[in-house]
Amino acid sequence: MGIDGCEVAVVCDRSEKALQRVHRTYPGMRVTTDHAEVLTASDIDAVCIITPVWTHYELARTALENGKHVFVEKPFTSTSQQAEELIELAGKRNLRIMVDHTFLFTGAVRKIRELVDAGAMGQLLYFDSSRINLGLFQHDVSVIWDLAPHDLSIMDHVIREEPQAVVATGGTHFGKHADIAFLTIYYPNNVLAHINVNWMSPVKVRTTLLGGTEKMLVWNDLDVDEKIKVYDKGVTVTSAEGVYDLLVSYRSGDVWSPKVAQVEALTAELSYFVECVTSGETPFNDGVAGLRVVRMLEAADRSLAERGTVIPLG
Amino acid sequence: MGIDGCEVAVVCDRSEKALQRVHRTYPGMRVTTDHAEVLTASDIDAVCIITPVWTHYELARTALENGKHVFVEKPFTSTSQQAEELIELAGKRNLRIMVDHTFLFTGAVRKIRELVDAGAMGQLLYFDSSRINLGLFQHDVSVIWDLAPHDLSIMDHVIREEPQAVVATGGTHFGKHADIAFLTIYYPNNVLAHINVNWMSPVKVRTTLLGGTEKMLVWNDLDVDEKIKVYDKGVTVTSAEGVYDLLVSYRSGDVWSPKVAQVEALTAELSYFVECVTSGETPFNDGVAGLRVVRMLEAADRSLAERGTVIPLG
Amino acid sequence: MGIDGCEVAVVCDRSEKALQRVHRTYPGMRVTTDHAEVLTASDIDAVCIITPVWTHYELARTALENGKHVFVEKPFTSTSQQAEELIELAGKRNLRIMVDHTFLFTGAVRKIRELVDAGAMGQLLYFDSSRINLGLFQHDVSVIWDLAPHDLSIMDHVIREEPQAVVATGGTHFGKHADIAFLTIYYPNNVLAHINVNWMSPVKVRTTLLGGTEKMLVWNDLDVDEKIKVYDKGVTVTSAEGVYDLLVSYRSGDVWSPKVAQVEALTAELSYFVECVTSGETPFNDGVAGLRVVRMLEAADRSLAERGTVIPLG
Amino acid sequence: MGIDGCEVAVVCDRSEKALQRVHRTYPGMRVTTDHAEVLTASDIDAVCIITPVWTHYELARTALENGKHVFVEKPFTSTSQQAEELIELAGKRNLRIMVDHTFLFTGAVRKIRELVDAGAMGQLLYFDSSRINLGLFQHDVSVIWDLAPHDLSIMDHVIREEPQAVVATGGTHFGKHADIAFLTIYYPNNVLAHINVNWMSPVKVRTTLLGGTEKMLVWNDLDVDEKIKVYDKGVTVTSAEGVYDLLVSYRSGDVWSPKVAQVEALTAELSYFVECVTSGETPFNDGVAGLRVVRMLEAADRSLAERGTVIPLG
Repeated sequence: MGIDGCEVAVVCDRSEKALQRVHRTYPGMRVTTDHAEVLTASDIDAVCIITPVWTHYELARTALENGKHVFVEKPFTSTSQQAEELIELAGKRNLRIMVDHTFLFTGAVRKIRELVDAGAMGQLLYFDSSRINLGLFQHDVSVIWDLAPHDLSIMDHVIREEPQAVVATGGTHFGKHADIAFLTIYYPNNVLAHINVNWMSPVKVRTTLLGGTEKMLVWNDLDVDEKIKVYDKGVTVTSAEGVYDLLVSYRSGDVWSPKVAQVEALTAELSYFVECVTSGETPFNDGVAGLRVVRMLEAADRSLAERGTVIPLG
Repeated sequence: MGIDGCEVAVVCDRSEKALQRVHRTYPGMRVTTDHAEVLTASDIDAVCIITPVWTHYELARTALENGKHVFVEKPFTSTSQQAEELIELAGKRNLRIMVDHTFLFTGAVRKIRELVDAGAMGQLLYFDSSRINLGLFQHDVSVIWDLAPHDLSIMDHVIREEPQAVVATGGTHFGKHADIAFLTIYYPNNVLAHINVNWMSPVKVRTTLLGGTEKMLVWNDLDVDEKIKVYDKGVTVTSAEGVYDLLVSYRSGDVWSPKVAQVEALTAELSYFVECVTSGETPFNDGVAGLRVVRMLEAADRSLAERGTVIPLG
Repeated sequence: MGIDGCEVAVVCDRSEKALQRVHRTYPGMRVTTDHAEVLTASDIDAVCIITPVWTHYELARTALENGKHVFVEKPFTSTSQQAEELIELAGKRNLRIMVDHTFLFTGAVRKIRELVDAGAMGQLLYFDSSRINLGLFQHDVSVIWDLAPHDLSIMDHVIREEPQAVVATGGTHFGKHADIAFLTIYYPNNVLAHINVNWMSPVKVRTTLLGGTEKMLVWNDLDVDEKIKVYDKGVTVTSAEGVYDLLVSYRSGDVWSPKVAQVEALTAELSYFVECVTSGETPFNDGVAGLRVVRMLEAADRSLAERGTVIPLG
Repeated sequence: MGIDGCEVAVVCDRSEKALQRVHRTYPGMRVTTDHAEVLTASDIDAVCIITPVWTHYELARTALENGKHVFVEKPFTSTSQQAEELIELAGKRNLRIMVDHTFLFTGAVRKIRELVDAGAMGQLLYFDSSRINLGLFQHDVSVIWDLAPHDLSIMDHVIREEPQAVVATGGTHFGKHADIAFLTIYYPNNVLAHINVNWMSPVKVRTTLLGGTEKMLVWNDLDVDEKIKVYDKGVTVTSAEGVYDLLVSYRSGDVWSPKVAQVEALTAELSYFVECVTSGETPFNDGVAGLRVVRMLEAADRSLAERGTVIPLG
């Protein structure tokens, strides 16, 4: 609410109770239960869509058709076709789409991207992420659509290549949607990504390993003080003749935990949205970035339905 | 060397240097570089085969043909066919085969099995294990054949059902063999297992999650004092009508870390081998248990070759 | 602000800026910079004094003289004499004093007290607490008066005996006040307490060990999920004859981490204050409890001034 | 046993059983129960005295009188007078005394000393060490004489100043000797040291904090991979006028965990002993270093006897 360069025009929610809460905290705020009122209002430039994923397409399309920039919660849409349509529509109207990949605005992900871009990691080898905890079960989506978008968007932001194929395995213990899932994403140049998402874990884990030829790093998002540790560890392989054709030696050096900026990620993201809307700049977390994540989610669903088969992308 | 009821007759190694080391520690020990001498000796009842996996079949077969009981390092054999032949041969000769699934003799695995068997966990839901660290690269096998036999044998011992299918994904960054791999094993009754093995991790992790309907546990083998933590956590699902057809509630209670017996697992295993040889009892980690692990390794290899496709078992 | 049975009448602060912040959050709130207005107002029953410690006595005295119950931030007063006067004054007027020993209202301290009271720990042997981190330096008090009141009030609440003597050592590296200090408090029956407070530590530690003859526990307040661990560990001593007159054996069993209630401690404390004011009940964290802490702080100051000499109490 | 430049001549122990164990491992070894045989033997150059502390003086004196260099387990002697006599005797005979302060030869302590000597820490401010665990109770000495010599010798090695005074507090719960103790050691220039030793802790802790004006470090000896963490954290104080005469600002930067050499400390120490004996060099852990530790232990005993009073040194 304290983002420079913008003003909250109206808050819309189908629940009267939620609107009452808004009123209590922001007494003068205009509120409504009618989303059409928001999406067609002439005095509104941009709309934030924080609703169940199956409603994203309809709401965003109406907003775009009425000339509004849109900020959409992750995952972007329910299908890649919907995402493609919205991207096309926004393009025609010269409107911005931003998908809420909040983690990209944290100090930790910025630092990791910075290390990768600066070449500090060497060539990337793998990305392996665990995002597990007890609940909360979602009623309308699986654990893949609920938790994996975080990892997929981070992975996409860090690896910066087109993924080639997805394999997903998992299990459904309650209801209709998978509550545990394991995703493998194949990238060019032998870069391998893996994501472990689980709503049924007694412990909370938020850990990502990133392996490179020069350095390896571990990002533990639950560690308050040392979120990222960079290891000067690695493998040096010398080709040699004979039966044992691989001479492998290990490098094991210092560990370094860079200071990570303490930023409020959502505030930073919304400021960036306002900036992009104002300047016409295309955000890096635009509809196309959102589409890449949706394509991987769709592929994961297809793979999971066959209990794990490789689904090519693109 | 201090196992009751047996005596070390001879130590065989192709390396003279290794035998010299034996001599220094055990001055009077008979040693040889000729394995035939051991396998055919009339005064030897049982042979321990601690050699590369591709030699297991030949050595074990010769030993069995010469009337010797065999203790074979994991994995049992290079193929399931070899394992089946050895099992048949041992059966005909009434000889014992024991496969070195050492972890089954640790205090931690015994305690986990005890909890499962006593029904404390409720119905099992999933098994998720990570065994990652830097190196050591093996020259003749992949990370799957090197590290996963530990997890597969533990999982097999704890879940006690016939696995239905295997999916494996992974990557090969150096040489010819995968150095990172992710296995999913499907069991009956919706029990799901997952194994993450990695030779390229900067940190060492040895953690297994076991989820049940009544309790969930985490086994961290690197924790000296509290290897196993049992969580009184879980999910209660009530079916309900309407759009939200699932009412999920969470249970979150005490954590309990049972005392785990501090046993020297290999010593316990070898004592058990001597006991089985003496009494004629079939060890629980016999050739059949070894075969189950080899079948999963074979299926993992086939799945990995297709970058992750489901391979049915049995 | 949401405590049942009371209403906030007025907020007083010497800073206009602070009052503006109050206005923004609570638009209709009556505010003032004049404390006399609050302390003498006829429509006010109770006053919360959240000011520097050297002002507590004057403010609390005026409030009590005007018939108001008082809630005072820790430490209660600058001297034990001031505390005694306030206690006497409140007694004569039949008014309540509550000292803000917030930690006593946390789920962790409640659980520890419960375990001790139920006899689960056996006889207490020692209490050893570390409360260290970087900063924040206080300008008007030492690290002892700033941090140790937490530990002293918890210790007092758990041990429930009259302390006999205090020894304090420490160092002053910047300014006039000690920034590192170590307190030892001797209790009857050989119960020993120790408190390590430090404003100059690179890491934050909030750990208390409590040793008993039956159980020992570790309270790590920074552990989100397992704040308290109870160890079934101990020492059994058998007297024996001869040179080695002590036969010591060790007990090492399970570890148990009881679920700790997630309560907002300050809210619970303020509700209890309203309850005590309403019912006339004497709070357990009354002026007398505050005085016990102030006496230990005074003794610590005297001991520290002599670089560590034993100062008897009571 | 594999130290270059020396040979084990004879092993002496009063226990026949212990000597039998020696025989089993080192079949040809000369053994004896008569220490006089060792201390007076003409073919022996140096003697290692690994016996209860109350026997050190007698044995070391006899060895020195017979022209032998001595390596003595910590603590050096039972009294400072004994230590002074031995030092004088060794000086007259031009013999080496080395006191077994093994920790000084670990990679961790070497790295800490290196950082301090290189000025990386800035000016030292404090040293705070915890060495606590359950048992093992000693029959003939207190926890101070058992555990604190490790910390005192490390502290002495790192701080490299003459300590000025000692304060000790503690408790005796079983038998005659303190099982918990807290030592404060005052150094010149406001450097403060504190040592927490405890035989009655349910958890094992081996942690030392070292604060400097430029950097602060934490040495956790139980951390296998990151024993030392160096924090670019600190306090900058600016003097200013007015009531608040201290402007304190905090520096909080990267954390760095230097690679620590994996050395077998005792082997390194014994090699150094042989080197000193051969070259005539005075070891840094000589009798004088041992004496400094004994003086602090004596002062701690005197302070503890008075429940904590400051005992000047030197």
